[in-house]
Amino acid sequence: MKQRVSLVTLGVRDLTRSLAFYRALGWRESSTSVDGDVAFFDLQGSVLALWSRADLAADSTVTDSGGWGGVTLASNVGSAADVDDVLSEAQRAGATIGRAGAPTEWGGYSGVFLDPDGHPWEVAHNPGWPLDVDGGVRIPA
Amino acid sequence: MKQRVSLVTLGVRDLTRSLAFYRALGWRESSTSVDGDVAFFDLQGSVLALWSRADLAADSTVTDSGGWGGVTLASNVGSAADVDDVLSEAQRAGATIGRAGAPTEWGGYSGVFLDPDGHPWEVAHNPGWPLDVDGGVRIPA
Repeated sequence: MKQRVSLVTLGVRDLTRSLAFYRALGWRESSTSVDGDVAFFDLQGSVLALWSRADLAADSTVTDSGGWGGVTLASNVGSAADVDDVLSEAQRAGATIGRAGAPTEWGGYSGVFLDPDGHPWEVAHNPGWPLDVDGGVRIPA
Repeated sequence: MKQRVSLVTLGVRDLTRSLAFYRALGWRESSTSVDGDVAFFDLQGSVLALWSRADLAADSTVTDSGGWGGVTLASNVGSAADVDDVLSEAQRAGATIGRAGAPTEWGGYSGVFLDPDGHPWEVAHNPGWPLDVDGGVRIPA
């Protein structure tokens, strides 16, 4: 199995609400999205989808426990100030701030917001993981 | 907020077991991983981490509902035969097969396996989303 994640699908309870949230963060869904059904966001080599949580559970052959299930996403940015800016932007868009930006024990700076469905996003500056020109993370050898 | 996912962290209950599973799929963790604590896999522009589920819940400021929480990952491959091959490989590595490979209503072919912690992976061939030379997905314009 190739060492890639092609698609991350977030199960959502109200696609219109979720789409409005991610659009407020500046994200733009692909034209291949299907109105009222599924939204796809091109992540430059992978894709994030928003889809009905009930349909996703059925399609994934799992039982939905209703809360958080052991997966957290992160958005890495170029500085501690950028972390604070993204957290503020997310809060304005309707996110709940789980924890404000603060130094981390691993030598970086991060905070957490929760999207409208409670999916957590860590917003992090990791000085040990430089970002490439496209904003991608590559772990130094 | 940039339209990227920098890091996907899977919370796991037994890092040794999870690491053995992903290694059996051919994945190789980065040398920046910390033995017994966290494993990082370079995904070419993003990173997948395996970390203690309890620590991840605390760090993510969420309560762990104990099961699936509305996130599913996918690995897209080049053909239906490749889907079956990856599902077989995952089963040999100890995965549970949620559903065998079969044609999908969206014109592709997919199946699902569950990793040792029950994290679902859809393995999919989507003829509408060609893979680039590095195995990345780019949604056609």
